[in-house]
Amino acid sequence: MMKDNRLLFDKYKSKIFSADKAAKLIRNGDVVGVSGFTKAGDSKAVLPAFAERAGEENLQITLITGASLGYNTDGALATNHALAKRMPFQADSTLRKEINAGNILYIDQHLSETAEQLHNGDLPKINIAIVEAIGVTEEGYLIPTTSVGNSATFLAMADRIIIEINEAVPLEFNGVHDIKLQKKSPNREILEVTSCETRVGDTYIKLDPNKVEAIVYTNKPDAPARIADPDKKTISIAKHLMQFFEKEVEEGKLTKSLLPLQAGIGKIANAVLAGFLNSPFEDLKMYSEVLQDSTFQLIDAGKMNFASASSITVSEECYANFIKNFKNYKDKIVLRPQNISNSAEVIRRLGIIAINTAIEFDIYGNVNSTHLTGTRMMNGIGGSGDFARNAHLSIFVCPSISKEGRISHVVPMVSHTDHTEHDVDILVTDQGLADLRNLAPRERAQKIIDNCVHPAYKEQMQSYFDRAKLKQGHTPHILQEAFSWHTSLDEEGTMQLQ
Amino acid sequence: MMKDNRLLFDKYKSKIFSADKAAKLIRNGDVVGVSGFTKAGDSKAVLPAFAERAGEENLQITLITGASLGYNTDGALATNHALAKRMPFQADSTLRKEINAGNILYIDQHLSETAEQLHNGDLPKINIAIVEAIGVTEEGYLIPTTSVGNSATFLAMADRIIIEINEAVPLEFNGVHDIKLQKKSPNREILEVTSCETRVGDTYIKLDPNKVEAIVYTNKPDAPARIADPDKKTISIAKHLMQFFEKEVEEGKLTKSLLPLQAGIGKIANAVLAGFLNSPFEDLKMYSEVLQDSTFQLIDAGKMNFASASSITVSEECYANFIKNFKNYKDKIVLRPQNISNSAEVIRRLGIIAINTAIEFDIYGNVNSTHLTGTRMMNGIGGSGDFARNAHLSIFVCPSISKEGRISHVVPMVSHTDHTEHDVDILVTDQGLADLRNLAPRERAQKIIDNCVHPAYKEQMQSYFDRAKLKQGHTPHILQEAFSWHTSLDEEGTMQLQ
Ligand SMILES: CC(C)(COP(=O)(O)OP(=O)(O)OC[C@H]1O[C@@H](n2cnc3c(N)ncnc32)[C@H](O)[C@@H]1OP(=O)(O)O)[C@@H](O)C(=O)NCCC(=O)NCCS
Ligand SMILES: CC(C)(COP(=O)(O)OP(=O)(O)OC[C@H]1O[C@@H](n2cnc3c(N)ncnc32)[C@H](O)[C@@H]1OP(=O)(O)O)[C@@H](O)C(=O)NCCC(=O)NCCS
Repeated sequence: MMKDNRLLFDKYKSKIFSADKAAKLIRNGDVVGVSGFTKAGDSKAVLPAFAERAGEENLQITLITGASLGYNTDGALATNHALAKRMPFQADSTLRKEINAGNILYIDQHLSETAEQLHNGDLPKINIAIVEAIGVTEEGYLIPTTSVGNSATFLAMADRIIIEINEAVPLEFNGVHDIKLQKKSPNREILEVTSCETRVGDTYIKLDPNKVEAIVYTNKPDAPARIADPDKKTISIAKHLMQFFEKEVEEGKLTKSLLPLQAGIGKIANAVLAGFLNSPFEDLKMYSEVLQDSTFQLIDAGKMNFASASSITVSEECYANFIKNFKNYKDKIVLRPQNISNSAEVIRRLGIIAINTAIEFDIYGNVNSTHLTGTRMMNGIGGSGDFARNAHLSIFVCPSISKEGRISHVVPMVSHTDHTEHDVDILVTDQGLADLRNLAPRERAQKIIDNCVHPAYKEQMQSYFDRAKLKQGHTPHILQEAFSWHTSLDEEGTMQLQ
Repeated sequence: MMKDNRLLFDKYKSKIFSADKAAKLIRNGDVVGVSGFTKAGDSKAVLPAFAERAGEENLQITLITGASLGYNTDGALATNHALAKRMPFQADSTLRKEINAGNILYIDQHLSETAEQLHNGDLPKINIAIVEAIGVTEEGYLIPTTSVGNSATFLAMADRIIIEINEAVPLEFNGVHDIKLQKKSPNREILEVTSCETRVGDTYIKLDPNKVEAIVYTNKPDAPARIADPDKKTISIAKHLMQFFEKEVEEGKLTKSLLPLQAGIGKIANAVLAGFLNSPFEDLKMYSEVLQDSTFQLIDAGKMNFASASSITVSEECYANFIKNFKNYKDKIVLRPQNISNSAEVIRRLGIIAINTAIEFDIYGNVNSTHLTGTRMMNGIGGSGDFARNAHLSIFVCPSISKEGRISHVVPMVSHTDHTEHDVDILVTDQGLADLRNLAPRERAQKIIDNCVHPAYKEQMQSYFDRAKLKQGHTPHILQEAFSWHTSLDEEGTMQLQ
């Protein structure tokens, strides 16, 4: 029987609960650590059941995950006022609305840091963990599904544990993971990942079986990623980027296999990564956070040899192919805890090329990844800071304009700073690429205006910069005007100044 | 003879030049890598001689150092228009003026990153290196003086080398340094520093003797640090900080020896560190960038066991005592290259407590370390970002007000962001301490207003925050007003709004 295959630890058998019954184990006020990273490997039964119960019984929890959850679980929790606090990342439109209304307290963290802060005691103790598994080993240990995220930390720190065994994820997945927990300071050890392929831990997550209070069976695949086919803008961004890499190879700074790639979440980054399909680069590797459709396209095309990440988030079609041909992929991927996939130590050691999407950037190279017009949270910083800070090359991409030109993604001053000028090497829009290395602020500004700003905004930007330069300063700005484009968007519906 | 003691490599003997003659080896347009880190171990003869020559002959160079230089070398270079470009840090009032006038292009970098960027080929090739030494080994290798900085990288990458042997630094200094160079990506290795004391390299810097074109003798101590005695404000900041650490120890989050300390440059950080003298903490260690007077006071008081850094920058009095009693200190200190003292990998592994000084911070926890009213460069980010990002606890301190209350160092929105809310745990002013861990933006704002803002600015700040909250947003702001305090300071001479 299928169930026996997946539950090899007999003591758990008396604990097989329905989702509703397991959801009752969550208490009002609990700090709940739940698996799930960019829709992959999240709780698909217990947390949704809790969302419903919380609405009826007026319960609230602090919810900590790996990253964003799938389906509308975050939305249902938000609608039912079930969340007092939420961290470290989300990407749900309903939850976003509640956060921006000030109804839910959201803590936006570097994805590498949540586990650190939990271990350091900087965040409240985890009361209960809910983690999706493909199955349980003979020792009662947990084999994760399509993401690892913070699950190992949650399981180590929680008082009580609920395991969701998801029969929709094939058992063959066993072996894909590489799990290791750090010791606490001052006894932390070297993280011995010296290549994308290096394995340093176990394929399962150890846990104390006495903490396990419920086993819940589910049979539901991850919510699929919405991907967008490359369009004019993303094709153009990818083209500029490929030309840049070719130049770096010509100059002997990189080889044809470049250096391990990281690509951020979202439609743009996925489309840009697909640009490598028709490039002269080969033997590529990935050391990233999420494996998206483009990763598997590159593996299929023989362009990419190996990919390390914390989760797999792909479209329905890509997932079907992935499962069907799993044997082709199994020795080419590894899934790690997010404090290892995003570790500063490993990212700098491996010399990652990091490609992330910006909401906006400014003429001095500061990047906003999170806030619309400085106040409204979009998703969160995610792993973009983990990678941008420590990468060999830190690249941010975005369209030059959107919303029929009403928004310019290049602005005089970013309305919120997630990545400072110190952490950004290359900026790319559909208009072109600005290589900021070895440039002082005034040089950067002119290069960004020349190469990245959309023609519709060029004059307006040049005027700002020229007038700012008339004042003193290493980084010329006119503080009275620095946000005038943003306030114009809020008030007039466009960044085009009258 | 003294000289023979210091120059054990015979081939160099024919190359003993005067400073003026050596300065002629620097060519117009050269990229020059020079030793020196926060005044310590800088070129005291050749670079000043070049500054003079450059004024007469209209020469310009790109100058890369470890960090700031001593005496008025940077000032003389600036006055004589000798600098086309300067990186990665400076703290000279004349140079600052020229940078802010737009006459000198300054690149402000994380101090850990310059060496990385040089090795990656992201910065121009070093043509000539000038490095201060206490002497030269039998192999022609260089033994540094009071700082290591980027010297090992400069010597490895330069085409031509000038060595300044400084007889004012005792030969006993030999053995204090620990030098190792990284390989290039993708062959970088694990940095095996697992405690403040761990040594991973040599006590000298290897170099190719064929590159050495001149040896210059000098006999001049480092420019002394200007230190300020603790005053009411810094005593108050230190008191709040000590109380916080005591609470952390009580709660079992830290032990009485805390975790390795880093303290930023400047008068405030030095005074705050002195607060440990009368604290219950013991067996302290330091893993920092600069050792200041307070470090040696703590060692003398038996409070501190060991200190690792990249330089020693102390007052005249402290230096005299240090030299006189050097045998007491020799096994308690180590000086490393700045990409190791400031390495992300090591900082996170050791679990550093980082204490840096802010120019200003805002109600959401963003920190400005570099720019006065958003435009004028003060010094640079230095190592503050290297430490703040990866520290176990990231602390920023500053006075609540200064200039008779005309400046509030807590503002609605920082006018320049060096450290984002994601990287800041604790903020302290003379008014009190705000522990931001586990707080969402709106919670942080109220805590900072309550604990850190000076009474003279409290009402004004509360009014801003309350009115901002009436608008939508995860991080409430009124963009039209966010910089009104700064523009008021520029226009009316005070941040007190009328
Ligand atoms: C930046 C980010 C939101 C882009 O995501 P994406 O899927 O590529 O882009 P989208 O087209 O969905 O853009 C998001 C929306 O915000 C809007 N938007 C973007 N910039 C805006 C701006 N400056 N002002 C107002 N709205 C803006 C877009 O128009 C779009 O709106 P729509 O949904 O109504 O069309 C996403 O990459 C992100 O959240 N990044 C931060 C985290 C991160 O970088 N992680 C990387 C490591 S995993
Ligand atoms: C922030 C920093 C400038 C403070 O230095 P300090 O010696 O402790 O403080 P100072 O009293 O010299 O303050 C600097 C000056 O700037 C002025 N100043 C500070 N904040 C200001 C503000 N918000 N607006 C205008 N002027 C301001 C001060 O009033 C003071 O002026 P003065 O020289 O005319 O008295 C210094 O720590 C620094 O450069 N930090 C960045 C680099 C770093 O953190 N390195 C740490 C790792 S090494």
